[in-house]
Amino acid sequence: MIELECLFCEEKHRLDLFNSFCPECGEPLLFFTPRRKRKFALDKILTLEKFLEFLPLSRVDPRLSLGEGNTPLVPLRRLRQKYGFPPVFAKNEAMNPTGSFKDRGTAVAVQKASEMGIKRIGTVSTGNMAASTAAYGAKAGFKTFVFLKEDSTPEKILSTGIHGAVLVKVKGDYGKLFKASFEIGKKQNIYFMNSVDPLRIEGYKITGYEIFLQLGCRAPRYIFVPVSSGGHLIGLIRSFQDLKREGLIQSLPIFVGVQAKGCSPLAHAFAQGMSKFHRLSRAETIAHAISNPAPPAGNLVLKLIRENTGLIMAVTDREILAAQRELAEFEGIFADPASATTLAGLIKLSKSRRSRPRDEAVLVITGSGLKSMETLKKQDIAVHKASLERLYSALAGK
Amino acid sequence: MIELECLFCEEKHRLDLFNSFCPECGEPLLFFTPRRKRKFALDKILTLEKFLEFLPLSRVDPRLSLGEGNTPLVPLRRLRQKYGFPPVFAKNEAMNPTGSFKDRGTAVAVQKASEMGIKRIGTVSTGNMAASTAAYGAKAGFKTFVFLKEDSTPEKILSTGIHGAVLVKVKGDYGKLFKASFEIGKKQNIYFMNSVDPLRIEGYKITGYEIFLQLGCRAPRYIFVPVSSGGHLIGLIRSFQDLKREGLIQSLPIFVGVQAKGCSPLAHAFAQGMSKFHRLSRAETIAHAISNPAPPAGNLVLKLIRENTGLIMAVTDREILAAQRELAEFEGIFADPASATTLAGLIKLSKSRRSRPRDEAVLVITGSGLKSMETLKKQDIAVHKASLERLYSALAGK
Repeated sequence: MIELECLFCEEKHRLDLFNSFCPECGEPLLFFTPRRKRKFALDKILTLEKFLEFLPLSRVDPRLSLGEGNTPLVPLRRLRQKYGFPPVFAKNEAMNPTGSFKDRGTAVAVQKASEMGIKRIGTVSTGNMAASTAAYGAKAGFKTFVFLKEDSTPEKILSTGIHGAVLVKVKGDYGKLFKASFEIGKKQNIYFMNSVDPLRIEGYKITGYEIFLQLGCRAPRYIFVPVSSGGHLIGLIRSFQDLKREGLIQSLPIFVGVQAKGCSPLAHAFAQGMSKFHRLSRAETIAHAISNPAPPAGNLVLKLIRENTGLIMAVTDREILAAQRELAEFEGIFADPASATTLAGLIKLSKSRRSRPRDEAVLVITGSGLKSMETLKKQDIAVHKASLERLYSALAGK
Repeated sequence: MIELECLFCEEKHRLDLFNSFCPECGEPLLFFTPRRKRKFALDKILTLEKFLEFLPLSRVDPRLSLGEGNTPLVPLRRLRQKYGFPPVFAKNEAMNPTGSFKDRGTAVAVQKASEMGIKRIGTVSTGNMAASTAAYGAKAGFKTFVFLKEDSTPEKILSTGIHGAVLVKVKGDYGKLFKASFEIGKKQNIYFMNSVDPLRIEGYKITGYEIFLQLGCRAPRYIFVPVSSGGHLIGLIRSFQDLKREGLIQSLPIFVGVQAKGCSPLAHAFAQGMSKFHRLSRAETIAHAISNPAPPAGNLVLKLIRENTGLIMAVTDREILAAQRELAEFEGIFADPASATTLAGLIKLSKSRRSRPRDEAVLVITGSGLKSMETLKKQDIAVHKASLERLYSALAGK
């Protein structure tokens, strides 16, 4: 059993790992923060070991690690110059073992599963989380079950299936599938580590600690992060709350959650000042990794953004494509469209006199562009042709 | 001008960056190793800064870095168990910024270009090196030229083109194109950092230093690495030669270069005891990243492998596919087919009574499986289907 709390009901619940939503209000539960003083162990090699005191794990089994985390924080000098930004950095989570930030969360959840003697895990996903869960499941020697949406692309299916996971394409509503997975998991002893799993959220905190350390033990003024289920953003907020509680920073960054306009239930609710979002009946965006019409932690995101300083905004597919191109052309980072929302968001905010960022910003790049190659067909990329003999003249003037 | 040496003619040459093959014998030139004592600077963050004294750079410009290197060395516990291997590790170079080991070399070459005031760079490549050069060129604000083979896949082209490189698909012989690029570069002031560029090779040395440090300041007994042009293997050999010269290790690892049977000119020459290889007229393997019928550093590889302990072997496409699957299913690493040759090589050697590895081995995983998704169609991956209602029964017995 694990102890979790509901930030809405303000109550604690003792639960198994099979379902971590509040039995009273249905919102996602989180681990609560112990009152004791905690310390980093920066001499360790594995990121989970470095930040163990901040995680709900009693120990780390190094045999379950794929070398997640410890990703670079890269200054975006040329984009800064072009746009007259304040200093801006990319935290490149695409450099995780399976190419996305999901590995941070999976790594923690798999440790806990192992600690509790659970050897069957699963997830409901169409992309990054599926590949991540299947990879860590393989490393641990677990049996891994992945429920895929009917319209999942062959690429996503194959790069998950290669890890030997049991893949099931499920016909039917995705939201219902999400809920059904917990029931099935309970009956069949499968720990479904879905998007807002509290252990995943604990794993995402490490990204925040690393940003703090990489900036020389400071918080940035802004953190831009793509928002889908909401779990990643919640993890980042909690990491800086931790740092403040430990007296390491004075104030929290301004968190900017970015959604794609074609699927932006939280940006809409935020703009309207609502405390609960309306689930959408359809979503349409090229940023598939954040195309989530009913984010399970959506209300919790709205609450945390309201209580701390922050905002949720939306950017169009056109802005996303342009930002993806600029990250690649100016900074050498080939990010997926979801990640590019962060730059698109910064550019958009910079045009607003009132909310223009005037201080250091970090963009969290959540996944590799190699994971959504289909989008590239929408980018206008020129290819010249020449014979070997005419190569020299083909380059003239270039 | 830079000073390079030919290990065949044993002569030094002062050259510009535009062509680094021996003017006398045509073999690739290398930087020579200074006699002074050198030290690591492990308190630094960037890998180039950590190992600066071992590189032919006078300083490191951090603005040109994408956060390359510092990749994990992951114990392969489950494969070890399955096969009864000695301890075996994966050095996961797929976790570099553009998903392959090429970034190590590009990072050094781009530093040198910048140091020498060159702002136009290029490469001849069909895959990993093209994307890497284009990404680092973009980061530096250079103009980047990439010559592609006529049959390059759209995926490879797009993931290079997104960085704004000038792409030219060239009709004609690949070997001739390689040579022509240096002439064109000289005329048009473009530094073509091709596969066996001496600065690239210096960059690959860092992988060796990291392996040494990650093992607790020891050399492994074996290093398995895929062999294409030969540059990567040469860099690895030189790194351990450096460590020996500094008195940090007593003896060199046994280097095992692995080629794909359908394109194995060096394995063939090695088996025949030849000091020079014969270029092939055709190549046929699923391991596209190492499908090189005329490796420009081939003779140098044969010389170094002969002078140090080592061997070059070949594995079949069938063995490569099986190894790719096992790396993913047992260890959670989704590697490209070229990388999987290392595991296939280890499995093959383990079956030989005479040359079975009896001590620690490191497999160098050179590139991400996400970079050759087309291969996955050859893997037999099952996808089950179920409606939401029948999901529970669909899992029964699984």
